[in-house]
Amino acid sequence: MQAWSKRVVENKAFQNFIIALILLNAVLIGMETYPSLYQSYGTILQVLDIIILAIFTIEIALKLIASEPTGKFFKDGWNVFDFLIVAFSYIFVGSTYVTVLRILRVLRLFRTISVIPSLRKLVNALLMTLPSLGTIMLLLTIVFYIFSVIGTVLYSDVSTEYFGTIQHTALTLFQMITLESWASGVMRPVMEEAPYSWIYFVSFILAGSFVVLNLFVGVIVNNFEKVEAMESDEEEDDLKEEISQLRREIKELKDYMKNS
Amino acid sequence: MQAWSKRVVENKAFQNFIIALILLNAVLIGMETYPSLYQSYGTILQVLDIIILAIFTIEIALKLIASEPTGKFFKDGWNVFDFLIVAFSYIFVGSTYVTVLRILRVLRLFRTISVIPSLRKLVNALLMTLPSLGTIMLLLTIVFYIFSVIGTVLYSDVSTEYFGTIQHTALTLFQMITLESWASGVMRPVMEEAPYSWIYFVSFILAGSFVVLNLFVGVIVNNFEKVEAMESDEEEDDLKEEISQLRREIKELKDYMKNS
Amino acid sequence: MQAWSKRVVENKAFQNFIIALILLNAVLIGMETYPSLYQSYGTILQVLDIIILAIFTIEIALKLIASEPTGKFFKDGWNVFDFLIVAFSYIFVGSTYVTVLRILRVLRLFRTISVIPSLRKLVNALLMTLPSLGTIMLLLTIVFYIFSVIGTVLYSDVSTEYFGTIQHTALTLFQMITLESWASGVMRPVMEEAPYSWIYFVSFILAGSFVVLNLFVGVIVNNFEKVEAMESDEEEDDLKEEISQLRREIKELKDYMKNS
Amino acid sequence: MQAWSKRVVENKAFQNFIIALILLNAVLIGMETYPSLYQSYGTILQVLDIIILAIFTIEIALKLIASEPTGKFFKDGWNVFDFLIVAFSYIFVGSTYVTVLRILRVLRLFRTISVIPSLRKLVNALLMTLPSLGTIMLLLTIVFYIFSVIGTVLYSDVSTEYFGTIQHTALTLFQMITLESWASGVMRPVMEEAPYSWIYFVSFILAGSFVVLNLFVGVIVNNFEKVEAMESDEEEDDLKEEISQLRREIKELKDYMKNS
Repeated sequence: MQAWSKRVVENKAFQNFIIALILLNAVLIGMETYPSLYQSYGTILQVLDIIILAIFTIEIALKLIASEPTGKFFKDGWNVFDFLIVAFSYIFVGSTYVTVLRILRVLRLFRTISVIPSLRKLVNALLMTLPSLGTIMLLLTIVFYIFSVIGTVLYSDVSTEYFGTIQHTALTLFQMITLESWASGVMRPVMEEAPYSWIYFVSFILAGSFVVLNLFVGVIVNNFEKVEAMESDEEEDDLKEEISQLRREIKELKDYMKNS
Repeated sequence: MQAWSKRVVENKAFQNFIIALILLNAVLIGMETYPSLYQSYGTILQVLDIIILAIFTIEIALKLIASEPTGKFFKDGWNVFDFLIVAFSYIFVGSTYVTVLRILRVLRLFRTISVIPSLRKLVNALLMTLPSLGTIMLLLTIVFYIFSVIGTVLYSDVSTEYFGTIQHTALTLFQMITLESWASGVMRPVMEEAPYSWIYFVSFILAGSFVVLNLFVGVIVNNFEKVEAMESDEEEDDLKEEISQLRREIKELKDYMKNS
Repeated sequence: MQAWSKRVVENKAFQNFIIALILLNAVLIGMETYPSLYQSYGTILQVLDIIILAIFTIEIALKLIASEPTGKFFKDGWNVFDFLIVAFSYIFVGSTYVTVLRILRVLRLFRTISVIPSLRKLVNALLMTLPSLGTIMLLLTIVFYIFSVIGTVLYSDVSTEYFGTIQHTALTLFQMITLESWASGVMRPVMEEAPYSWIYFVSFILAGSFVVLNLFVGVIVNNFEKVEAMESDEEEDDLKEEISQLRREIKELKDYMKNS
Repeated sequence: MQAWSKRVVENKAFQNFIIALILLNAVLIGMETYPSLYQSYGTILQVLDIIILAIFTIEIALKLIASEPTGKFFKDGWNVFDFLIVAFSYIFVGSTYVTVLRILRVLRLFRTISVIPSLRKLVNALLMTLPSLGTIMLLLTIVFYIFSVIGTVLYSDVSTEYFGTIQHTALTLFQMITLESWASGVMRPVMEEAPYSWIYFVSFILAGSFVVLNLFVGVIVNNFEKVEAMESDEEEDDLKEEISQLRREIKELKDYMKNS
């Protein structure tokens, strides 16, 4: 049974069938968003959805059986993701949280990533750059928190929408760090009542974008290092190989002389 | 006949004449957009346009004749582009699609690129970086599709203009990824009715800009690798040359000793 | 006494206790911004704040005693920062500047940086890139000043809000260099009265973003140089080590021959 | 006379005096923009301005005399800039173009750059990166012109403010390439009358930002190459030096053997 599951799961045709199914699922989910289509073909779409969910369940069951020991299956984050997405679809079935169910169905499309190996590798690579950015993200969090508290203390009365509570201010600061309407929408209206508030805004823009710039530079440098390390290692290895061959030849020469 | 065409086509003066003609064409097309100029000189402009189109036709005919075998002409994408631009000008002549004709006439200006070698080389180089970005663009497409469906499911009733259908949402997401009015124009109005919608918007901005950042880094790394590969290869070759000369000398030394 | 202070200050448990205290302080300061929480627990929050301030004072006193000679304590900028933050808390106590006191209390959270070594190192590294950007920042200042004066001379009557005085214009230019509403909010309204003002705006955007771009490139190049210097030095050292070993062997060979 | 001028011009104290004068000039020009200050001290400011202009004239005259042959003075672009700034101040004196005169006086502040050597070097370096960007800037110009014509042809009736003439469209496209209000301000209003206009806007944003991205990458790569070329040359030279020393030693060894 376990060997048979493994053969099925690793079968190329089976994998392509699953990819095709996910794409079909994507199209169906897209169609459902058009009210006119949903009214005409609603039942067909629902039936197809149940069939697809059933096949996904079987697929994951097979994968679970195929992996030995069973616990190994859950060691890969992508497998856990696949499992949860399918499991939650059952939990919320029949519940009143229709929207939750619909979104779960959409999240199923992320399976495209877990199923296509090149995408899986890329996303793994992207996620792997995150830990190296840990310290600078901690710094960004501290800057955000401090400016959130200051902003709330100073301007909660001036502009409730933007600085009402710490959460509101944090969202406003996130908007400001993307430079979106930070002056025309946020600073200038506040300045009408608090003329010196520009100090707060300009210093946040300067501090924030300087930290973010260094965050970006961190990502870039990280990527480069990896690429360069691979390249220059090869080259260095070539040179070292040449030189060590040289040393071997000199050693031979020495040995030859000693023996002569 | 074929040899003569080739001589004409490869003639420097002929090439410069074509460049001059394209520039004249650009000026004429620019003049046509001014209603006052068009009313006064409309007929002259139209006659000149017909003459220029005729010369372009002759030019392409010559190039077609000059290339041996004829099929070789269509192997260069730029030749195909030139051919289609001129061919379509004939197809739509006299049709009621005046705007199509006018735009075709403007697209003719892209011939500046196909005619000036340095520009042709640059655009080829830019286009060549695209395939290496394939996987990350696929990822971007998946992220866009998933967020488009979620956005439409959740907010189609809240804001028909931005999230009415999947197409509308996709356009809105494209606007958001350029960070243009994503908060002041899109998020804040939606938040008035759906207070927790900030989760959707902030997570899209974070995911989207992280992927796009890596896309950009990909382009940059790509460009660097090319430049560095060329440079460091030369240097490495120099060093290797030096070392292999060393080895030759040691070999000579060994041979000398054996013979002595 | 001095030895005992040093032992306490360098004690790992004591350091973690201070970090925990700063985090508690952060939470308390956040809670204070919610009027409902402040009304219910105001007195508790104030008492806790006084206790925390007292502990911080003792900590800094211990550090001062621990450092020998005492002046050495003030050689580290972070110590000066810690000292000033605590000292100012006393100076403004009981004063009518309640807001100043509250902001001072928030700034205390920057102590997270001075207390966690990895953050301290990171911020030191970030600040160290600033001096190397001195010349380009001077250039940016000159460009800002000149455009501020020109903007004020030309458009102070057209738009008092944006170009009323040099300070207003400088703030507007800072907004424009972040590209925020530079056209829709600033240029287009001015253009309605001064149609040729686009020359001023476009040339500032071009000059400003070109200088800023080079500022950013400066930061990036700076970071790379440091990383690469470390890496390639190691590699070069490896190669040089190999080559010098080679030379030693040849020397041995020569000596051997001379002696034989 | 010529030798004396040279001694004066190259005198450190004289150069610092000129720098101080330019800074004073900057302050005066800034003060003039405040109507209240201008009314109180207008005459003093004007007298000081005349004195400064006189000293600048003398300075340039001395520099002209000092350079041998005289034509050599005009070979440095910064000297030509200094000369023109001062010369134009005389031409427009007493004319009715008061604003021109005021702006000329402000432009004089650019002399800070021509007078401080480190700034002069930096600006020279920045300007030197421009020619290498020639081809990609030509490409950008072509893309701008084509999209300007298409935009004017298609939307001159829909939105006269943004697409009335080619000049208006070009300015709108420049605004769009900085991503400022491209969607909320320009695209969405046009889309209300021309629903398919998003094709035009999105394709411009994609093409434009792709070309601009490569322009930026060009600048960055350029800067890196220069820095790296300097660094790696040194390192390579070190290695080559080591290896050539090796070869010399082997040569000695060979000679020694031949002679023994």
